Amino acid sequence: MRCKIFTIVLSFVYLYGWGQQEDSIMIRKIADDILTNGKAYENLRVLCKTVGGRVAGSPQMYKAESWGQKALQNAGADKVILQECNVPRWNRGGKDEAHTINDSKKRSLDILALGNSVGTGSKGITAPVIMINSFDELDRRQDEIKGKIVFYNYRFNPLFVKTFNSYADAVKYRGQGPSRAAKYGAVAALVRSMTHATDNNPHTGATLYNDSFPKIPAAAVGLKDADILVDIIAKDKNAALFLKTNANILKDTIGHNVIGELMGSEFPDQIITVGGHLDSWDPAEGAHDDGAGCVHAIEILRVFKAIGYKPKRTIRIVLFANEENGLRGGTKYAEEAKAKNENHLFALESDAGGFTPRGFGFTLAIERLQAIRQWLPLFIPYGVYEFNAGGGGADIGPLNKAFGTPLAGLQPDSQRYFDLHHARNDVFEAVNKRELELGAINMAALIYMVDKYGL
Amino acid sequence: MRCKIFTIVLSFVYLYGWGQQEDSIMIRKIADDILTNGKAYENLRVLCKTVGGRVAGSPQMYKAESWGQKALQNAGADKVILQECNVPRWNRGGKDEAHTINDSKKRSLDILALGNSVGTGSKGITAPVIMINSFDELDRRQDEIKGKIVFYNYRFNPLFVKTFNSYADAVKYRGQGPSRAAKYGAVAALVRSMTHATDNNPHTGATLYNDSFPKIPAAAVGLKDADILVDIIAKDKNAALFLKTNANILKDTIGHNVIGELMGSEFPDQIITVGGHLDSWDPAEGAHDDGAGCVHAIEILRVFKAIGYKPKRTIRIVLFANEENGLRGGTKYAEEAKAKNENHLFALESDAGGFTPRGFGFTLAIERLQAIRQWLPLFIPYGVYEFNAGGGGADIGPLNKAFGTPLAGLQPDSQRYFDLHHARNDVFEAVNKRELELGAINMAALIYMVDKYGL
Repeated sequence: MRCKIFTIVLSFVYLYGWGQQEDSIMIRKIADDILTNGKAYENLRVLCKTVGGRVAGSPQMYKAESWGQKALQNAGADKVILQECNVPRWNRGGKDEAHTINDSKKRSLDILALGNSVGTGSKGITAPVIMINSFDELDRRQDEIKGKIVFYNYRFNPLFVKTFNSYADAVKYRGQGPSRAAKYGAVAALVRSMTHATDNNPHTGATLYNDSFPKIPAAAVGLKDADILVDIIAKDKNAALFLKTNANILKDTIGHNVIGELMGSEFPDQIITVGGHLDSWDPAEGAHDDGAGCVHAIEILRVFKAIGYKPKRTIRIVLFANEENGLRGGTKYAEEAKAKNENHLFALESDAGGFTPRGFGFTLAIERLQAIRQWLPLFIPYGVYEFNAGGGGADIGPLNKAFGTPLAGLQPDSQRYFDLHHARNDVFEAVNKRELELGAINMAALIYMVDKYGL
Repeated sequence: MRCKIFTIVLSFVYLYGWGQQEDSIMIRKIADDILTNGKAYENLRVLCKTVGGRVAGSPQMYKAESWGQKALQNAGADKVILQECNVPRWNRGGKDEAHTINDSKKRSLDILALGNSVGTGSKGITAPVIMINSFDELDRRQDEIKGKIVFYNYRFNPLFVKTFNSYADAVKYRGQGPSRAAKYGAVAALVRSMTHATDNNPHTGATLYNDSFPKIPAAAVGLKDADILVDIIAKDKNAALFLKTNANILKDTIGHNVIGELMGSEFPDQIITVGGHLDSWDPAEGAHDDGAGCVHAIEILRVFKAIGYKPKRTIRIVLFANEENGLRGGTKYAEEAKAKNENHLFALESDAGGFTPRGFGFTLAIERLQAIRQWLPLFIPYGVYEFNAGGGGADIGPLNKAFGTPLAGLQPDSQRYFDLHHARNDVFEAVNKRELELGAINMAALIYMVDKYGL
């Protein structure tokens, strides 16, 4: 049998019977419309260029909400609503600065304060710097930490082909690093940026303070400057840094999930959620993270209307508030769903960039996942060849917790994502129109299949 | 059986027995070395930034040959040779210019003369312009062509997901368009660039004059200016253009294929050729087309030496001369192989850019192709999931003609390729380090498998 199997396997031939021809035609229709009349790219341009970076609670957040409402209305939503939720208000407060002190050249370092971090105060902090390569090393050298700036130099691992694995491996230094250093008396923390980019852009992102320890200022440093710092520390045991960050945390304010619906024709109470998050870090335009996810989701609604596909179940497009530093939008969405006892069949998120698609990751019983892998031949012509176990998205996670709702996340090619994730270069120009459109095509195809066959 | 098949199929499980574990380990070794110590990206930087555009016969061609020799030596080739071949010498000769004449605004059009085209002479050409959307239309309107500039406005079709199909569909207007227009008395030809880019860069490339008709000047125009031209022609039936191109063709000169070898340990007479082409169009750096292919090929040699893999057969890395406007390098290589009665087992080319890999295309008996598809599970972890029927590369085509040698071509994701193909923006900065490296990994893996198991 083996011989025959691999012939069948790898030519990706006809693998399931019912309706495949019809589905293939419908998905081609979706693709043709998106590749010809797609609005995802233009929607993204407007978001990036007229709103830009949009941290939760900032004036840009409100502009982005208006953009989202309008884009969903233009796409043809049956109704568009704003779902209120509290959001935190972290504010960078000015230009972050750092330079070496006793280095002969007094070099500036390109840094970005971490999201949620406290500022140094207007005078900044001047202190000796200690390089730490791992939490093990931190614990071993705990007696040397007091009064110092801890520089976490943990390297992004190039050996993972799927770069989200490198991120999962490294991000704890950004998330937990400052508080773990504070535990031993550090006065500030710097982290080597989570990227294998060839440039020097620092990559920000949220840190999570542990309330048991003092909150110390924290920032990310770009790779070239991180390497310079490594050299300086190697040459001079008394190397010191000046650091000035200006961040402050104001009290919570009101933000919104922006929601557009296509009402289901047969089972309007069965809800399929598709979303991305509307907030982004401030130094860039949040083009891939996660403007792309927002316009992907909106495009599904648009294309269904454009080709006259009337979903059986209700398709709800959600542009979530505050993913980056609080997850308040996703949390609120699930809370309200629970309070209203809604029926959530499935949720799909795009939060891994607008790159050429390769797969979907599913949080779903393994037998169900195996069953829907028979759909893959429909997706392969559009670049998706993997339905992987595990995946979803931060914003739809609470829905799974609340109801056990099956989740999926779009998995685009990940090679370029961490070159620009949370960095200045995450701008509209870094997005390719067709790659973005192929993401929307595959997402729309998946939603069409789930709407038609259930899950 | 169906149920079982698709489970097996789509989990891409263990599909062949012999040596798979060993092969998987070896390919991981290749990948780890390239992702950690790879030189492809740095080699490409040097080629792009110290040589730049390198049309056959230009001074840059010779600089590129020196670069190639050195890169192959540094990679550890057992020997490096220059294989002499005649190359044509087309020379752009200066800045190409075009503007509208009787349009109220006298707009400049961004154009690039086509490779191999003749110049307009120093005074340029001023003539009415006629828009032609297809060769059918040209033939139908043959009486209207005389004395005019024919503007071919054939659109790059967005509906092909694999963009090389759009190119295959459109490129005849660049290749044959000028001569077919000259047949009816046109004085020059403009072609809408073969791209679905969102910018205005013109995309050059070779035209092929038919000696039966006068050689008329010919150039490509960027998409935005092409659309402006469409509008102008729609509004004004007497619209006219000024066109000045400065190209000239000097007599042939001597160029070289640059060849580096790893001698086979068991079957040194069996040759596996791996290549890309060293020449590129002049307005850019030829980063994706085809600097990427050159550094891919060199990287295979480097990694085999670095990890201590001693091929059984002779691996010959060839940086081919003059692919773009003559194919003299590839032709010469096959001629010499024939004259020496060499034994060419297999040839692989990378000439579709340094983007994230998705597959290989094979020119190979279908039963053999089906048989080697059992290798696919080894490639999937590195992003290659398709072994397609059909493919190879222009430079290795003559080898297939001469000997029936099986061919393969790397098939990277094609969405971005025609955004920069033959245009100014085909520069080093448009190449992502890891995407480039993944191409080299998959190519090295394929060469390893063919070397080990034959074909």
